[in-house]
Amino acid sequence: MSSAMFSMRASHGTALAPEGSTILCDSMYNKSDFFHKHLLSFKRNHVLSNLAHLSVSQRDRIQCSSLEVESKRTFLKGDKFQLQDVIEGQQFDRDILSAIFEVAREMETIEKKSRGSQLLNGYLMATLFYEPSTRTRLSFESAMKRLGGEVLTTENAREFSSAAKGETLEDTIRTVEGYTDIIVMRHFESGAARRAAMTANIPVINAGDGPGEHPTQALLDVYTIQREIGKLDGIKVGLVGDLANGRTVRSLAYLLAKYNDVKVYFVSPEVVKMKEDIKEYLTSKGVQWEESSDLKEVASKCDVVYQTRIQRERFGERSDLYEEARGKYIVDREVLDVMQKHAVVMHPLPRLDEDTLECIKGLTGRTPWLESVLKSLITVDVDADPRAAYFRQAKNGLYIRMALLKLLLLGW
Amino acid sequence: MSSAMFSMRASHGTALAPEGSTILCDSMYNKSDFFHKHLLSFKRNHVLSNLAHLSVSQRDRIQCSSLEVESKRTFLKGDKFQLQDVIEGQQFDRDILSAIFEVAREMETIEKKSRGSQLLNGYLMATLFYEPSTRTRLSFESAMKRLGGEVLTTENAREFSSAAKGETLEDTIRTVEGYTDIIVMRHFESGAARRAAMTANIPVINAGDGPGEHPTQALLDVYTIQREIGKLDGIKVGLVGDLANGRTVRSLAYLLAKYNDVKVYFVSPEVVKMKEDIKEYLTSKGVQWEESSDLKEVASKCDVVYQTRIQRERFGERSDLYEEARGKYIVDREVLDVMQKHAVVMHPLPRLDEDTLECIKGLTGRTPWLESVLKSLITVDVDADPRAAYFRQAKNGLYIRMALLKLLLLGW
Amino acid sequence: MSSAMFSMRASHGTALAPEGSTILCDSMYNKSDFFHKHLLSFKRNHVLSNLAHLSVSQRDRIQCSSLEVESKRTFLKGDKFQLQDVIEGQQFDRDILSAIFEVAREMETIEKKSRGSQLLNGYLMATLFYEPSTRTRLSFESAMKRLGGEVLTTENAREFSSAAKGETLEDTIRTVEGYTDIIVMRHFESGAARRAAMTANIPVINAGDGPGEHPTQALLDVYTIQREIGKLDGIKVGLVGDLANGRTVRSLAYLLAKYNDVKVYFVSPEVVKMKEDIKEYLTSKGVQWEESSDLKEVASKCDVVYQTRIQRERFGERSDLYEEARGKYIVDREVLDVMQKHAVVMHPLPRLDEDTLECIKGLTGRTPWLESVLKSLITVDVDADPRAAYFRQAKNGLYIRMALLKLLLLGW
Repeated sequence: MSSAMFSMRASHGTALAPEGSTILCDSMYNKSDFFHKHLLSFKRNHVLSNLAHLSVSQRDRIQCSSLEVESKRTFLKGDKFQLQDVIEGQQFDRDILSAIFEVAREMETIEKKSRGSQLLNGYLMATLFYEPSTRTRLSFESAMKRLGGEVLTTENAREFSSAAKGETLEDTIRTVEGYTDIIVMRHFESGAARRAAMTANIPVINAGDGPGEHPTQALLDVYTIQREIGKLDGIKVGLVGDLANGRTVRSLAYLLAKYNDVKVYFVSPEVVKMKEDIKEYLTSKGVQWEESSDLKEVASKCDVVYQTRIQRERFGERSDLYEEARGKYIVDREVLDVMQKHAVVMHPLPRLDEDTLECIKGLTGRTPWLESVLKSLITVDVDADPRAAYFRQAKNGLYIRMALLKLLLLGW
Repeated sequence: MSSAMFSMRASHGTALAPEGSTILCDSMYNKSDFFHKHLLSFKRNHVLSNLAHLSVSQRDRIQCSSLEVESKRTFLKGDKFQLQDVIEGQQFDRDILSAIFEVAREMETIEKKSRGSQLLNGYLMATLFYEPSTRTRLSFESAMKRLGGEVLTTENAREFSSAAKGETLEDTIRTVEGYTDIIVMRHFESGAARRAAMTANIPVINAGDGPGEHPTQALLDVYTIQREIGKLDGIKVGLVGDLANGRTVRSLAYLLAKYNDVKVYFVSPEVVKMKEDIKEYLTSKGVQWEESSDLKEVASKCDVVYQTRIQRERFGERSDLYEEARGKYIVDREVLDVMQKHAVVMHPLPRLDEDTLECIKGLTGRTPWLESVLKSLITVDVDADPRAAYFRQAKNGLYIRMALLKLLLLGW
Repeated sequence: MSSAMFSMRASHGTALAPEGSTILCDSMYNKSDFFHKHLLSFKRNHVLSNLAHLSVSQRDRIQCSSLEVESKRTFLKGDKFQLQDVIEGQQFDRDILSAIFEVAREMETIEKKSRGSQLLNGYLMATLFYEPSTRTRLSFESAMKRLGGEVLTTENAREFSSAAKGETLEDTIRTVEGYTDIIVMRHFESGAARRAAMTANIPVINAGDGPGEHPTQALLDVYTIQREIGKLDGIKVGLVGDLANGRTVRSLAYLLAKYNDVKVYFVSPEVVKMKEDIKEYLTSKGVQWEESSDLKEVASKCDVVYQTRIQRERFGERSDLYEEARGKYIVDREVLDVMQKHAVVMHPLPRLDEDTLECIKGLTGRTPWLESVLKSLITVDVDADPRAAYFRQAKNGLYIRMALLKLLLLGW
């Protein structure tokens, strides 16, 4: 479902719509009423024509969600609201985030303690990837299998819509939903996940749609901050690197705005500064922010230093600026030395910039030791420090995805 | 086994060869005796040399099937014949089809009611795809996993026979059969599935071999007609679109000839008319057929309107004829309006022709609503009608494949 | 762990270091102390910084293996030494080989008798392939699934280190180890497996690293000789074909040197003779060897004729020598006729040389019979002879891999 990510399971006679239940009102991707109207009537027609072939539980769910479209209720713990799809980070408010993080924490226990959980035994997930993203795919597939579920894999979904076998995304979804219980989709087009969720009668998780959203990355970033620092209210976060083009840091800034007394520092080369829309949004939400070009000074004050990659092509002809930027915003031992004891370094990974990689490729007989000497945006000598949180952050992606699969398939 | 798809399990002392037990006599792909003789002696030698390493049940099966080659017995319900391989639609007579459809119906119940069937627990299926066909592969893999079985996947089987790792299909099969219990093979060469089945000591299912056969598609089409209309004897079927080149409609016509009082309408542009061999075959089997260029008139009389894609390249230079054909044979609301209440529209999917796809690709911000406006061979506004059976047809592919896997691995 | 493939589990109070416990001293790939020192200190730092996040058993294991680095103990049956990684054939001495072969034999029973072993239920293996090798991948994945384990697959691991997503192997490993319990890696660079094992806190199996090692192939070759001939001491092995470039025959020669009274015959064209290093190594180990150009004479004396492919490019401009070599070293019925009754023909597969494949490709309507007429390095008419062991050899790969997975995940 596009405009109602949550629906109520029929546990209470009346639907509650408490204050602040505006899941989508701060969405960056508001669609016109025209669009929604057509989508919804389309979905309804589709639903009606197919009701005869649905199980009772499926039918209930659909009627329920049709109802929810108008009321736009939010999640209330204890009221057994059902998470239907995961399309964008903005669909979650802080209560839902908090509830998801609790489940993620339970997943940590399951993954570490119990060999062979059977929680999702008998459930089937399809990873429908229109472009390869091995890291994200393996993380989702591991999550499903750690819970006893099974997986259908394709990194070749583009074949569905190839010239020879032309097919709309909608038709592909209606076919694939017949084979599986949940679809995890990676697509090259912004908005593709929403279209898939609109069409599907089973849950859809957006595993990245082009320059659009990558909500599970956003969730795992916030979860990591909570896990590492112990809180989200009152934290100080330094966002470092290419802030203009980074989907990750933009999503993170948006989600942080849901918490109180947050302070954000933007540390970036002039050419790739954080854009105005985010700054205005933060201001409107009462989040303090500051721009700085002094990484060490910021690092000394922050709970989290969130580093991202800097890409040469963003600098166009100005390779001089690029070279300057590369050298200036590196997290190394010197930066670590000024950081507080409880603070952490995060990175969405992979951490190397292209030039460093090119440089390493040219070397023969290279060793981890050698690589640590080479300049990267986080130098390898940082890895040994307990404050280097980026591999734990990647692992948290597993727990977040386990939690979402559990919630989408079994409910709270 | 190539020329005997069925063998008897040792449940009766004597082998029955009742009248009409001529599975292969109406095959479109008769091979010369010379070919068969060599294949069979080859298989026997291979069998003998390997007997020492086979389990008792494997040995029984092979000796049995060697015996069967000569007698060419057919399936007799209650006599516990064993389905060995699925190579071509023509290997099935109406009794076997009926028995398979009963099992498919049971599979519907299993898929809908029981979470996590363990019927094929411990069995392993290899999808050996020499060319990608994501739709077919996912359908087979879902079928196996819905029954509790496991899957080894490759869409990269061409690598086996690449220049660097040159290997005959036979050697590949003899290696892969050591890793798995059943092979589902897609190949680019006609006849490849038969060669694989000849070589393998485990069951082989043909998931399409080039311009050759795609028997599971043929089965699911016939199954869908039975499920939707409730009968196969006495039905009226309109085959629409490119009938000259469509493997699907040709196979369907062949299988329909096994039933009584069937009437077939061919509705196609002049350039891609149904070929004479099929017409002669239908006539020889007492099936009435008629050619027409009036889709609406045919649709008003049929139980099933079976639409297929029309491909531009089939029209060569005559793009004027192509354009005319595209416009003329579209199933839209107007066609639906003349159809009977109980009738259905079927399509092997994907449904879009290339030009429509090109057209859609050029548009930004497209929506399902927009797409429904665009001309396709089945317009999107048809989807909402209960008579639009094509997505249920795709789902039936799952049940047919579940049934075949069950029958090949466990027997009746 | 790079230089200590085995560590002791804490079952005895004292560590035993008996005579001859020199696992790595005859390694072909000795690294400088400098290299080791850096690797080890790196590993230790990494270990320390991550201890907080490891389970108790993981921590024990790491401390244990750090300890083992210095003492270089070997495997002692009954003392519960733990196999940690499989990186190169040379890491195994004959006691370990013998113990692994016993487990492989148990695996044969499991694979043949019990449908659905649950031995590795709840364990997850990642096949991290930087280049496709469908045969090897399917063999490993079948091994894991035959034991009830689950698999994460990628043949697309190169994507991790692509220009766009530049990442060092070390970073990839540290991410992937968070998703799985064991990594099976295929890489295009020699030494990559060792680097991966150094980094990972979970077991790593080398499934081939470029021109480097392919230890599971070496193990299955030796296992096959033992299974087929019944012994390893005192055997006579003829290595035939391209001996200069074949990784397989070189590894096999090395492993055979661990047994007593072995005699090796080298049968090859002059241009691709076995290199001096291996001959010297064999001599130093007391293994008799002899060069010959008379395949029949050698075949009549050997227990094992081990055939390999001859590649045209190795002959450079001398295509005349290539043609001569191709014709001269073919195992056909005539060679079989002179072989002893108990002897076997082995081949790592695939068996065709490129020219034969090219020749076959050009033919239409080819059949196994036709192919048997064509010259290949082992003609198809050999297949029917019980002494043709190459498909059983491929199958033994499954048992060896099942054994290694069991040993690495569960111990002895």
